[in-house]
Amino acid sequence: MDLNYESELLERAVTELSRLPGIGRKTALRLALHLLRQDERFAEDLGNSVINLRKGVIYCKQCHNISQTELCPICSDPTRDNTTVCVVENVKDVMSFENTRQYRGVYHVLGGIISPIDGVGPESLEINSLVQRVAEGSIKEVILALSATMEGDTTCFYLYKQLTPYGVKITQIARGVSVGNEIEYTDEVTLGRSLLSRTLFTDQFKY
Amino acid sequence: MDLNYESELLERAVTELSRLPGIGRKTALRLALHLLRQDERFAEDLGNSVINLRKGVIYCKQCHNISQTELCPICSDPTRDNTTVCVVENVKDVMSFENTRQYRGVYHVLGGIISPIDGVGPESLEINSLVQRVAEGSIKEVILALSATMEGDTTCFYLYKQLTPYGVKITQIARGVSVGNEIEYTDEVTLGRSLLSRTLFTDQFKY
Repeated sequence: MDLNYESELLERAVTELSRLPGIGRKTALRLALHLLRQDERFAEDLGNSVINLRKGVIYCKQCHNISQTELCPICSDPTRDNTTVCVVENVKDVMSFENTRQYRGVYHVLGGIISPIDGVGPESLEINSLVQRVAEGSIKEVILALSATMEGDTTCFYLYKQLTPYGVKITQIARGVSVGNEIEYTDEVTLGRSLLSRTLFTDQFKY
Repeated sequence: MDLNYESELLERAVTELSRLPGIGRKTALRLALHLLRQDERFAEDLGNSVINLRKGVIYCKQCHNISQTELCPICSDPTRDNTTVCVVENVKDVMSFENTRQYRGVYHVLGGIISPIDGVGPESLEINSLVQRVAEGSIKEVILALSATMEGDTTCFYLYKQLTPYGVKITQIARGVSVGNEIEYTDEVTLGRSLLSRTLFTDQFKY
């Protein structure tokens, strides 16, 4: 739809909003018209939060998670076990694992996953910095917590090859039937992995 | 999903973005993380466009369309026929009709539609100002261009009752089979209306 706006300001706002992922010009127009119906404070808060976000956020120099300080709150927390490093693809995955409240180690954010199709090679990810962290010698276990996809598996294998010379323990998060899922609707590959990676029944009571 | 962000700025941006219609916290987080990956200019342009939009846009004092001047570009265009007024629900509908390039009259934006369920009565719409425009005497035709819904029909009927004492010609946009639609998939009510409102075959060559 071609929109001939009666206002340059509207045109500008729609153009900017539609540059966001998943927001087309029609949705952008709906958002802009919504903004017009709210009080001025609403638009100001939104606009400033977006500007300040990009201006103020930096990345932790150790784990590359977003932060507002040189070391993120997780890396600088003395109660966390910094001999265990969980390797994740992005910032969102850190939040997901934090939400489980099951993990007391630290993280390493790769900033992506190896994907030749998308032109993402190992050199564009935070892999060298991970190898360096491990080479320093205080890390005892690296947990690979990447997606159970072809790209995830490729990245895991690459990391395994890079890290194994340092004699660090390398583990991977379990693949199996999702909690709440029925066997009937679980795919065969997952079922196969769930059999191979079976655990002692009594082990579940440890948690 | 509960998100414990490592950054107050991120938390703030996600909260503000998720106040937009159709954007939940998960989408807001995706947008915020996307912003973090773009250069600073991107976030600044977006933020400022939103702030300036709300600050700068005013409404035309005659037709209540959005405008940057007291009279909108359509109302102040001397080449347009200001004896014909097309009554629409909102600003977006003005754009839709303008995009047809079939209309050379002016508009009147109601700012909504009568809907008792949503608590919208005639007094919260720009109906009095429409009646006043008609009462001034220079308008010859009022075209009711509201949605073909229960609320649209109710509003049309209300407007008809309000405007008819002034002897103005009141028309309604045609209801019929949408261009491109097959008869087989058109509902019976629409088919019935399309029969009742049939036009001379040769009339189509007039346009």
